[in-house]
Amino acid sequence: MESLEQLPKSETIELRKKHIGDSCSLFYKQEPLKIVRAKGQYMYDENGEKYLDCINNVAHIGHCHPEMVRAASEQIALLNTNSRFLHDNLVICAKKLSKMFPDPLSVCFFVNSGSEANDLALRLARTHTKHQDVITLDHAYHGHLTSLISISPYKFNSGKGLPKPDWAHVAPCPDTYRGKFRESDYPGSDLGKKYAEEVKSLIKGVRDKDRNISAFIAESLISCGGQIIPPANYLRNVYKYVREAGGVCIADEVQCGFGRVGKHWWAFQMQGDDVIPDIVTVGKPMGNGHPVAAVITTPAIARSFKETGIEYFNTYGGNPVSCAIANAVISVIENERLRENATRVGNYLLNSAQKLKDKHALIGDVRGVGLFVGIELVHDRDGKRQPAVREASLVLKRMKEEQILLSSDGPDANVIKLKPPMVFTVENADHFVRVFDEVMTEIGNGLLTNNRTYSPERRKISGEEGENHLKHKRTRTEKIDPSKNADEMVIKT
Amino acid sequence: MESLEQLPKSETIELRKKHIGDSCSLFYKQEPLKIVRAKGQYMYDENGEKYLDCINNVAHIGHCHPEMVRAASEQIALLNTNSRFLHDNLVICAKKLSKMFPDPLSVCFFVNSGSEANDLALRLARTHTKHQDVITLDHAYHGHLTSLISISPYKFNSGKGLPKPDWAHVAPCPDTYRGKFRESDYPGSDLGKKYAEEVKSLIKGVRDKDRNISAFIAESLISCGGQIIPPANYLRNVYKYVREAGGVCIADEVQCGFGRVGKHWWAFQMQGDDVIPDIVTVGKPMGNGHPVAAVITTPAIARSFKETGIEYFNTYGGNPVSCAIANAVISVIENERLRENATRVGNYLLNSAQKLKDKHALIGDVRGVGLFVGIELVHDRDGKRQPAVREASLVLKRMKEEQILLSSDGPDANVIKLKPPMVFTVENADHFVRVFDEVMTEIGNGLLTNNRTYSPERRKISGEEGENHLKHKRTRTEKIDPSKNADEMVIKT
Repeated sequence: MESLEQLPKSETIELRKKHIGDSCSLFYKQEPLKIVRAKGQYMYDENGEKYLDCINNVAHIGHCHPEMVRAASEQIALLNTNSRFLHDNLVICAKKLSKMFPDPLSVCFFVNSGSEANDLALRLARTHTKHQDVITLDHAYHGHLTSLISISPYKFNSGKGLPKPDWAHVAPCPDTYRGKFRESDYPGSDLGKKYAEEVKSLIKGVRDKDRNISAFIAESLISCGGQIIPPANYLRNVYKYVREAGGVCIADEVQCGFGRVGKHWWAFQMQGDDVIPDIVTVGKPMGNGHPVAAVITTPAIARSFKETGIEYFNTYGGNPVSCAIANAVISVIENERLRENATRVGNYLLNSAQKLKDKHALIGDVRGVGLFVGIELVHDRDGKRQPAVREASLVLKRMKEEQILLSSDGPDANVIKLKPPMVFTVENADHFVRVFDEVMTEIGNGLLTNNRTYSPERRKISGEEGENHLKHKRTRTEKIDPSKNADEMVIKT
Repeated sequence: MESLEQLPKSETIELRKKHIGDSCSLFYKQEPLKIVRAKGQYMYDENGEKYLDCINNVAHIGHCHPEMVRAASEQIALLNTNSRFLHDNLVICAKKLSKMFPDPLSVCFFVNSGSEANDLALRLARTHTKHQDVITLDHAYHGHLTSLISISPYKFNSGKGLPKPDWAHVAPCPDTYRGKFRESDYPGSDLGKKYAEEVKSLIKGVRDKDRNISAFIAESLISCGGQIIPPANYLRNVYKYVREAGGVCIADEVQCGFGRVGKHWWAFQMQGDDVIPDIVTVGKPMGNGHPVAAVITTPAIARSFKETGIEYFNTYGGNPVSCAIANAVISVIENERLRENATRVGNYLLNSAQKLKDKHALIGDVRGVGLFVGIELVHDRDGKRQPAVREASLVLKRMKEEQILLSSDGPDANVIKLKPPMVFTVENADHFVRVFDEVMTEIGNGLLTNNRTYSPERRKISGEEGENHLKHKRTRTEKIDPSKNADEMVIKT
């Protein structure tokens, strides 16, 4: 087979160092992967080595899906221009999207990225409410733009970047495992309501300062925050409080939307039929890798925006190619019943991973819905639940050696996350669980001590447990250098 | 030939009304065009009618250029994923871009739109300088994001949107034809320096308020501001003042870059070899319609950004498909010598249009460089130069009937702009000039009175002048309804 490399890997790395801003991180910094092709749920490096992709949620219907490739190729040869000309692809896409949402969510704005969508959502909210302030969740990430860094504690809490502006207010993340209110501390309580009341008192504090809430924004499942599934009754109550204060409710479905949760198209629907946001932002999976995203809102909010007299124009937003691709993605999800697959494979994966808790004390929590899964590693899981940071980092590194691509999330990067392409199979889940089990066994057997300092003398591993699935077992001890692991930890999509 | 419509036009319009936010404007609102395919400098509607495209600057190397189509189709079938994996297309694109810029501009960040690029440019400037304030030009437009509306007087001066924030400062647009300092008022003066001194005193005012300048941002040729070419010595002096104040200089080349000016790759280079911005943003033409854009900056500024410890991640930015397309676009510009074409055809067009000034008193100024051309229509061109607003609007409408696509720009929308695909030919220029001449003759013969109120009794037109190029001549009087023209005026890319 013809090589798919244009440059040797060393030169790619060299050029990248020279010409790409090094704020742009690589996965596996110490030994980055060069990927030259991908298909379905698999990626291939320059040597033809195959990797099982458990994290590329953007490649929603599978990498390089032929229907999507055909739609894109045909349209790009025919016409690609802006939405100031009438085009059927745009309105067909808007109609399809509208049908996927409950009333009154029926008006679309097309943009190029989840970030552009969230920025526009804030503009819509502020214009409609004539208020400025925004409530966001702790550890949230909503995008890379100036306006979104301001509402992304995940960004402004880290580093030396811009501080939190006055108009941004941070509510606790409704994490019932390791958050402010834990199921273990409040058995049988309505934690959704309890977390919502935090938002209520935040609103009161804001109004006491003579400020007003324009919007509450949250991912319907919280990704960077640690693969968190908000408890029942959370959004229902939050939305009520926010609306009473004159604000609107934004559901960020950029990572969790388009059927990833299986039963529903959108994760906010998990909170009940009566829970309907005022603005929804969608992105990543929508284009299966192609830059297309959208804001869906109500006629009333769209009208307020129109009434400012300011035109909204987005050069590429909703162009015929972007919409051809989005239309193909939606059709494939339906035709291949990928939502049903997400439910079936997701449940299987969750059950299998749950069983590993009996075997590995480091596994604190296994949670998820559909193909949105988090495995939280902690020390002292029956007590303080301290994040198993280095262990999580080591899992990623070892799994990569076993040719399984994973990453971690959460404020402590101790939550192993799986958000694979929706064509992920039961066999893929089995393979993941088997290898993960073995890697966890290695770690449990003493690669790392409990107090999270690496002790080289304990590095010897029993090689007896289970079958020998571990490709790199023999060479592994040479390769693992935990001093470098810190680099791997803060990798989030 | 098979129909390229999926819906009848009336249904497209109906669905658009229902499902697309109506802040998203159409060209020719009253009778919008449905475009189903395009090739080179031509677009075709659903009936196969052919339009000469004088405005689609995004379709830089020509609509649906086969090299670009091939590069996109091949790559999208092979791999499209994020830049956290090494890929040759990304680094090859970054290397190509770096070579196109003078030192020390050599570090790239890839994004999806000019708006994302300008937002990142502001973040880089603020991080590097640790200052907040930004100087922008009057009538400027830098993008649709919250942070950019704040520095776009074209947006915040119109409508009822967000007001200008405290940190944004507006310098006069260096328009030597109808701006604050006019060549006619200061013959032989160094107006570049004079306009730059406005920036200098603005900076002084800012510092007197204990504020500090992070950046000066300007398009190197000002598009929405009215196809303005800053006078010599403008940027040289402005950059000096801004740097003395501790700020950095951002050149927005989103609309005017990639060889549109012919002689140079970038319009800032027209101001001299010693005029080098600290940050350059590029976009639209880069992807020939595909959403890809970039920020190019210095190693020092990239380092300051890195030192915040905050990762920059852009899901689609610099993905293998986007970079394959950008690489193809750059190659085509070089291989087909499109910069040389821009100079040759641009000069021809400018000369031909200049000659029309003798014939049509409404033509106040004809200006341009390469395939960036503006024709400013005014009343009383030897005196007050009042913008000929309705006449410009009528020109657009009539030219559309003659199947020539144009739009207008400038604060009064009285500047007819041409920014055609770079494959525009001398024959296209001839055709444009001939039809424009005839339309201007119609208008001069009394379609509209001088004081810009429409007088129906003067609508009778002599049909004798020149050849009968005007397709719609016989039916035109039925079609023109100037009361509707206002809709057409504020259309800007």
